[in-house]
Amino acid sequence: MLVGVDLGGTKIQAVALDGTEVVAKKRLATPAAGGEELPAAIASAIRELGVDIDRVGIGAPGVIDVASGTIVRAPNLNVASTLPLTTAVAAALGISSADVVLDNDVNAGALAEQRLGAASGSRDALCVFVGTGVGGGLVLDGTIRRGPRGLTGEIGHVVVRDGGRRCGCGGLGHLEAYAGRRCLEDEARRLHEGGRQTALVRIAGDGRMKSSVFEKALDEGDEVALALLGEAVEALGAALASAVALVDIELIVLGGGLAGRLGAPFAARVDDALRARLFVPSLQVPVVPAALGDLGGAVGAALLAA
Amino acid sequence: MLVGVDLGGTKIQAVALDGTEVVAKKRLATPAAGGEELPAAIASAIRELGVDIDRVGIGAPGVIDVASGTIVRAPNLNVASTLPLTTAVAAALGISSADVVLDNDVNAGALAEQRLGAASGSRDALCVFVGTGVGGGLVLDGTIRRGPRGLTGEIGHVVVRDGGRRCGCGGLGHLEAYAGRRCLEDEARRLHEGGRQTALVRIAGDGRMKSSVFEKALDEGDEVALALLGEAVEALGAALASAVALVDIELIVLGGGLAGRLGAPFAARVDDALRARLFVPSLQVPVVPAALGDLGGAVGAALLAA
Repeated sequence: MLVGVDLGGTKIQAVALDGTEVVAKKRLATPAAGGEELPAAIASAIRELGVDIDRVGIGAPGVIDVASGTIVRAPNLNVASTLPLTTAVAAALGISSADVVLDNDVNAGALAEQRLGAASGSRDALCVFVGTGVGGGLVLDGTIRRGPRGLTGEIGHVVVRDGGRRCGCGGLGHLEAYAGRRCLEDEARRLHEGGRQTALVRIAGDGRMKSSVFEKALDEGDEVALALLGEAVEALGAALASAVALVDIELIVLGGGLAGRLGAPFAARVDDALRARLFVPSLQVPVVPAALGDLGGAVGAALLAA
Repeated sequence: MLVGVDLGGTKIQAVALDGTEVVAKKRLATPAAGGEELPAAIASAIRELGVDIDRVGIGAPGVIDVASGTIVRAPNLNVASTLPLTTAVAAALGISSADVVLDNDVNAGALAEQRLGAASGSRDALCVFVGTGVGGGLVLDGTIRRGPRGLTGEIGHVVVRDGGRRCGCGGLGHLEAYAGRRCLEDEARRLHEGGRQTALVRIAGDGRMKSSVFEKALDEGDEVALALLGEAVEALGAALASAVALVDIELIVLGGGLAGRLGAPFAARVDDALRARLFVPSLQVPVVPAALGDLGGAVGAALLAA
């Protein structure tokens, strides 16, 4: 059986895949200590699936060296230095490390959507995950494009307004600065400190401004939330128009924590914003919500192991 | 022998390629009537090479249907309706139409630079041609990426400043609006009509503001030319940074009439503008001038026929 694992900052999701069907799934909390404790926790989640293991795929956030199966840097996982994950997981499971592969979690999620999800039937797909940050995976001719440095799909750092709002990476005017949850929170708190009232800060208090906070503030008709999400929609439209011009994509899948929470109406607004910016107005490039939800990353990791 | 033809608005350039070497070349004027007269003119240029013909590749501007070997639309060639070019050229030469291929001229130019020019040795390359407009070709893993609608590489329509200057296509804030020669001319004439003195209008008079006019005005230190080309450099930096984030490219080749005329110093300025915008500051993504000059398109067309 193919096993896929989505290694996240708060949870480890494992699935067993029989052909295209998920036949077992198991979710565990990610060990808070992270780092060295991760391989054993991943192996536990896999063993609890209770299936015969043929090959294992793991998707992880951060900087991944696919060739060596190593996490190079992953602040969300408390991985301080390089972690040779495939070797360690294989050892914990008593299988060959040649049967374990590691890739970026957004690549895994994108492959899953292209093979079995919202983009099934398309040879090419751009999957954009709008959550704390904005990431993406690009499937071209049925294969994940990684690129020489494994950086393909970093649509969060596409420039939408040169010289504009500062991004977490330090750059100016990137998509993520307008559409990533963390940057939206920063902007909302800046506006609040400048004297603007907003339900975003009232609901979140001093805690993290989660996706659900944005949803509630929008439901209240909060002006700051409406304005910020309006800018996010326009920025997504611009970045996606650039992606279509550059690599000619037929379909865009929108997923991730924030986009998932805001659902189909949000995808429809981004679809409009993209359509208004296509350089060939008659082009059809639908923007559709991701279909696989929380399991997408793990399913994609299993597909990567195939 | 492989034969390549670059079909332009003013000239038809044919070459014969033996392996990687150009062993014959011939240039003719493009018939002013265009359209139906093109196949015979192309066949003439090819016959005058005086070589045995194995296969023929043709690069043409406009909208091309690669599968059927047809020019769908090409205003610069007076092609009013669909022109089945490969069939007609094959008939004129007395060879099988299966031995003639047609592609976009920028795709041909990009392939030539990746195989034999400034990007030889790179598996991937983005070639950007800055001339009357701004076009591009994308070579991924050694192969021209076309995409489902053959639109890949339209970097001129990447958004660099959402809502900004109007592009020839009607869109706002596209790269071409800031860096294409025709848009630069429009902007210079607008500024002139608004009362700004500029050597650009003085030198060009009522004629076309050719690339050489921009070069001369820059040499004079003309403020409008300096400002417009400065904006062009920044816009190119932003669009290239977006391309690197999206598809992870190691090397960018800069060619085309305007960029070719302004030469290596212009490429060096674009290189600086890109470097200042890379989301991973340590990335190496050199911007280098195209190496094949006027023959690039024809050489690439021959390579496409291989």
